[in-house]
Amino acid sequence: MQSDNPTAAILVIGDEILSGRTREGNAHHLAQVLTATGIDLREIRVVSDDHDHIVGAIRALDGTLGGSCDLLFTSGGIGPTHDDITADAVAAAHGTTVEVHATARALLADRCDRMGVELNENRLRMARIPVGATLIDNAVSAAPGFSIGATHVMAGVPEVFRAMVAWLIPQLPVGRPVRSLTVEVRRGESEVAEDLKAIAADYADLSLGSYPFRDDTGWGTNLVVRGLDAARVDQAMAALRTRIGL
Amino acid sequence: MQSDNPTAAILVIGDEILSGRTREGNAHHLAQVLTATGIDLREIRVVSDDHDHIVGAIRALDGTLGGSCDLLFTSGGIGPTHDDITADAVAAAHGTTVEVHATARALLADRCDRMGVELNENRLRMARIPVGATLIDNAVSAAPGFSIGATHVMAGVPEVFRAMVAWLIPQLPVGRPVRSLTVEVRRGESEVAEDLKAIAADYADLSLGSYPFRDDTGWGTNLVVRGLDAARVDQAMAALRTRIGL
Repeated sequence: MQSDNPTAAILVIGDEILSGRTREGNAHHLAQVLTATGIDLREIRVVSDDHDHIVGAIRALDGTLGGSCDLLFTSGGIGPTHDDITADAVAAAHGTTVEVHATARALLADRCDRMGVELNENRLRMARIPVGATLIDNAVSAAPGFSIGATHVMAGVPEVFRAMVAWLIPQLPVGRPVRSLTVEVRRGESEVAEDLKAIAADYADLSLGSYPFRDDTGWGTNLVVRGLDAARVDQAMAALRTRIGL
Repeated sequence: MQSDNPTAAILVIGDEILSGRTREGNAHHLAQVLTATGIDLREIRVVSDDHDHIVGAIRALDGTLGGSCDLLFTSGGIGPTHDDITADAVAAAHGTTVEVHATARALLADRCDRMGVELNENRLRMARIPVGATLIDNAVSAAPGFSIGATHVMAGVPEVFRAMVAWLIPQLPVGRPVRSLTVEVRRGESEVAEDLKAIAADYADLSLGSYPFRDDTGWGTNLVVRGLDAARVDQAMAALRTRIGL
């Protein structure tokens, strides 16, 4: 699929995903938002809570650091505990250091006041922001995310991650949303491969995919047509349906 | 966490994950299997059905090609349709070509016979295997996966992926399984950060993590202790529980 849309990567940071303890869901949520927005998600990476791994991945994916994508979104590792090392790693990747950010501190102090708890050293860790970064609003629990270069750093707690995404995305340069149509056929993938190939050849500007599945009644296949030109997508799907006899 | 266990990466191949149409589950399943087996999962990557992206990721992750891990597992892109390009990309990454594999062809021919369908050109695509690769058994639908170098190539359909994993893992060199203990506390992460840090300092050979969540009754935190030495993990968890007053 040809596109001039901005490109993006998602970097998920967390041992709990790699150990299998937690099933990742933030990347799936953001993938849906990006597709609807007109940003082309090119890659998702999950790395452990390891300084060098995080720094390496940011350098590989942030376009302002010579990486592969226009935008990089991260999830995880910005909480109050000793294993939350994302801010330091992002700062290192961007050649800067971390300091307590006055606005972030004020946001946390205000929340602690309202909750009647102390802004202790651990909570204050969440105000440590790379020098030069701007803040990402956290409508759920105050502790902000931040943006530096093309890297947008968000929390791993799903509710907070979603709130940050909802605040951030409208502020980014976007392209044309992708139109995607799906038709489910109750045949194996091999049965429809020829038809799909023929339509794909006629519509080389679109992306045609087939996704087999098996359920209680046997094998089926979802056929998907995707593209930026909505009319072309509709046309291709109509041609595909005719060809496979639906 | 110190470990001499083999290291691994998972490469998921598929536009449908990056578009948000499908929520990935194969990596989560395999992550659990690897942890239980004693293989350290270091990274998960998701890339699109794009030849160069797949080749680049395989070279970056397969230790026999100078990549970062002892083992690389892939999911997706080995079906019968035009967008199934994983076999070609894996062959290219390993400096070889793809040919119809006699045993793979026989497996498919046998299945087609039993199902009363023709082994047509599209179905035969699933017998195209990189020269020098060995086959991975598919107990569900016959079309095999394959192993070449440190790369183990499996299907994306979850049922088939799981069957291939079940067949493959017992044949790999493994290490010591990780012991993981979790305790849930009904406090915010900031409330337990100090205690966690203290125990982490006493047990530097283990991995201690905290995972905040929010549910109907408010905030809570899962505290996790992980390590190879089961007795040490038990000891650290007991110390942590005592320290936080459980």
